[in-house]
Amino acid sequence: MTRRRKAVVLLSGGLDSTTTLYHALKNGYKCSALIFDYGQRHKRELRSAVAVAKGVSVAYHVIRIKLPWKGSSLLDRKTKIPQNRKLTGIPSTYVPARNMIFLSFALSYAEAIGAKAIFIGANAVDFSGYPDCRPAFYRAFQRAAERGTRAKKIRIVTPLLRLTKKEIVALGRRLGAPLEKTWSCYAGGRQPCGVCDSCRLRARGFML
Amino acid sequence: MTRRRKAVVLLSGGLDSTTTLYHALKNGYKCSALIFDYGQRHKRELRSAVAVAKGVSVAYHVIRIKLPWKGSSLLDRKTKIPQNRKLTGIPSTYVPARNMIFLSFALSYAEAIGAKAIFIGANAVDFSGYPDCRPAFYRAFQRAAERGTRAKKIRIVTPLLRLTKKEIVALGRRLGAPLEKTWSCYAGGRQPCGVCDSCRLRARGFML
Repeated sequence: MTRRRKAVVLLSGGLDSTTTLYHALKNGYKCSALIFDYGQRHKRELRSAVAVAKGVSVAYHVIRIKLPWKGSSLLDRKTKIPQNRKLTGIPSTYVPARNMIFLSFALSYAEAIGAKAIFIGANAVDFSGYPDCRPAFYRAFQRAAERGTRAKKIRIVTPLLRLTKKEIVALGRRLGAPLEKTWSCYAGGRQPCGVCDSCRLRARGFML
Repeated sequence: MTRRRKAVVLLSGGLDSTTTLYHALKNGYKCSALIFDYGQRHKRELRSAVAVAKGVSVAYHVIRIKLPWKGSSLLDRKTKIPQNRKLTGIPSTYVPARNMIFLSFALSYAEAIGAKAIFIGANAVDFSGYPDCRPAFYRAFQRAAERGTRAKKIRIVTPLLRLTKKEIVALGRRLGAPLEKTWSCYAGGRQPCGVCDSCRLRARGFML
């Protein structure tokens, strides 16, 4: 019996991270998922993330962190989430250094369990312009991870980075990912709002 | 009236981070301190950190994080902390990606409040061999921070990186830092144990 290589997968409960998890599994990795309860406006996406992880029986941890400084409309219920905005510039939903924080925890986890890769479903095509979703950031983070850990050779893998949302949906379907279980809306009502960036980007994926 | 530039300072309550805070203040920064309760074996150093921050009336946050994967003798009370070991190699007290996690939070904080610098008291001379204390890691992190944030120009400042412990103590004294309030021991008993890496490195600073 060969032992499967381990990977840590960042799982938000959305379309992209769910597809990424299925991609990592398809590539033979024994996956462990990290889910973050970081003070986002709603818990709906956390339920989706846990459901997705349980659906494929991968181990997961829910990490609770509190960013007392806010600095994002995604963390502050008193502010409004932009609706039907022009998809240019960096919107107020940007959470300072969020992916850096998530990746740092993933790196710690990966090193502790001997995982060889970290998968993150970042996308720089149909995206909100967040700086921590761009290829240059992942290259730089890879280097910092190599310099700052004992393990040295933990790969940061971003399989969706250059795909369109349409291609992501197609990939998810091909992999048998339960896209119907995923949640993308920033608002977290009973139904997706349809007008936040995340809903609108998601819709691109399902358009005929 | 000129507005002072802001900085975030990582504060553990030890000798190095306390000296670093005083160095940042001396250089004119309006400092905010970040203190981490990350599951270390004792809370003694947290009390020191809070006392130091209060002593100079800087704002501070205590961030609570839980690393469910352990992977370090500093997080796991069932394991032993190395005593009087030869100071070579990476010891079991190394916490995977700890400084990366701390810096990521600091980066988020700095970006949220508009700080221009992050100060960290890392040292690569009289140190335990932790990979995340070496200059190459800080250079790489600086680059990742520039690529992954909106702010782009937040400097990672490591004033103690190439000083000996003796030089750090001398600097701390010159700056009027309350070294007597600081706590370095990993064990966290009523008195410092004197035999862990941290006690022994600290002792180098006070030797005549």
